Amino acid sequence: MKNKVAIIGLGLIGGSLALELKKHFDWTVFGIDSSAENAKKALILGVIDEVSDFSIIESADIVVIAVPVNYGPQLVLKVLNTIKKDALVFDVGSTKEYICKKVVKHSKRVNFVAVHPIAGTEFSGPEAAIYNLFDGKVNIICDKELSSEKSIEKTMTIFNRLNMRTIFMNSREHDKHIAYVSHLSHISSFMLGKTVLEIEKNEKNIFDMAGSGFESTVRLAKSSPEMWSPIFVGNKTNILTSLEGFIKNLQEFKEMIENEDTEALRNSMSETNYIKEILNGIKKQ
Amino acid sequence: MKNKVAIIGLGLIGGSLALELKKHFDWTVFGIDSSAENAKKALILGVIDEVSDFSIIESADIVVIAVPVNYGPQLVLKVLNTIKKDALVFDVGSTKEYICKKVVKHSKRVNFVAVHPIAGTEFSGPEAAIYNLFDGKVNIICDKELSSEKSIEKTMTIFNRLNMRTIFMNSREHDKHIAYVSHLSHISSFMLGKTVLEIEKNEKNIFDMAGSGFESTVRLAKSSPEMWSPIFVGNKTNILTSLEGFIKNLQEFKEMIENEDTEALRNSMSETNYIKEILNGIKKQ
Repeated sequence: MKNKVAIIGLGLIGGSLALELKKHFDWTVFGIDSSAENAKKALILGVIDEVSDFSIIESADIVVIAVPVNYGPQLVLKVLNTIKKDALVFDVGSTKEYICKKVVKHSKRVNFVAVHPIAGTEFSGPEAAIYNLFDGKVNIICDKELSSEKSIEKTMTIFNRLNMRTIFMNSREHDKHIAYVSHLSHISSFMLGKTVLEIEKNEKNIFDMAGSGFESTVRLAKSSPEMWSPIFVGNKTNILTSLEGFIKNLQEFKEMIENEDTEALRNSMSETNYIKEILNGIKKQ
Repeated sequence: MKNKVAIIGLGLIGGSLALELKKHFDWTVFGIDSSAENAKKALILGVIDEVSDFSIIESADIVVIAVPVNYGPQLVLKVLNTIKKDALVFDVGSTKEYICKKVVKHSKRVNFVAVHPIAGTEFSGPEAAIYNLFDGKVNIICDKELSSEKSIEKTMTIFNRLNMRTIFMNSREHDKHIAYVSHLSHISSFMLGKTVLEIEKNEKNIFDMAGSGFESTVRLAKSSPEMWSPIFVGNKTNILTSLEGFIKNLQEFKEMIENEDTEALRNSMSETNYIKEILNGIKKQ
């Protein structure tokens, strides 16, 4: 009999994962979504094999949780309470410490793997699901030692087949670093977009004067508020620290401009130019 | 006899312009650069026809000034003092109010056109010069009424041939708006890069965890400090206002996170999502 996979949450990540699982494995992919309309869309778009509901969980071999991070922890508990003995459950949320803490004492903790595939676009919903979203990207598995070897093995089989490079991290460390290299970028983009919209009442100026630089810095401001507001709250402590650092740097830079201190400005930017090497490194990987 | 074009400053913009003028017009393109090495590179790379020096200016038909904006104003005066009667002089700097003010009383003001082609990449120097950099982009001409009709006409011939759409603005308005839609993006990118570099002493975390979102928001932090520090100082007043707005918005967003006010966060982001329409509009143009 074919393996049964249940994916809860048929947005960008859940949907794209569904597409890949259907493509690479001979499994039946059931889709569950709190929005009946989204579930239907996912079916029509060929993202999933069947629309289903929570009743499928007790017979599922693999359960993927791809919902906004404020719903994840409760849902994982409910799923772990329901699954059969050998089922694998993993979530793909962007914050990991809280969800790991929440399940740590569950009798089926070993069935659960905390996963964060570093992939995405600024689009959302089942219509945003695309092939090859994960191809060549990094996948993070957190608190590996709390999952059974078998669960880790199954998870690795999936993400290796998607051509992802998996690394392992402590969930706490994950949340700290991801605040800087992902969450902060989103906040910066949103606030940059907001600042420009506030001043440019006449949109024509933005149309006419914005170059590709503006486009790339505000691209993330197209992202889904429903997905991101729980992430910002969920990773509050780390994000606040990163935001404080960012605001402090902006204020210092502002003072250098006020003082017309071109040398200090040049030095500050020259040091930051080092990011080139790092970004080139990312591309080469 | 062939028209003589002198381009002063053989970086990304001056160099790319040289390539296009050589391609589209039967003119001889002379290159002048304060760095002998850069001038030689530009020649070897085929960016210019000949390396030259300031002595060429008195016989040039067209003089293009493509130097950092702190050198522009003095240089335009010197060039206007030197050119022959019908020569055209234009600069391509990213700030326009100061340079326009500086030349306003010059007897050859009508020979000068203040130009800002909205195009660029994060790279610099003659090796950054590329074809089609300007293709399909917007070109801004400031304080048009202070240039002669003939100067404007010649300038338009050039930029139309490069397939740019030219719009006209007051130099003061230009500087105000460009602070928001270009200069602020660069500062945000630099400071985001700086903040991440400060915390991520271990670069491996950036390599492993940074997604495409991080890459696009910090791309501009690769830009040239030599080019950008004079722009930030040159457009000080407008940039300070835009930076204040940006910092204020970041602080308010930070408070919403502190208060775990997901609704306020969602609303703030939803409003900013409107930037989608604007960015799509830019692409369609």
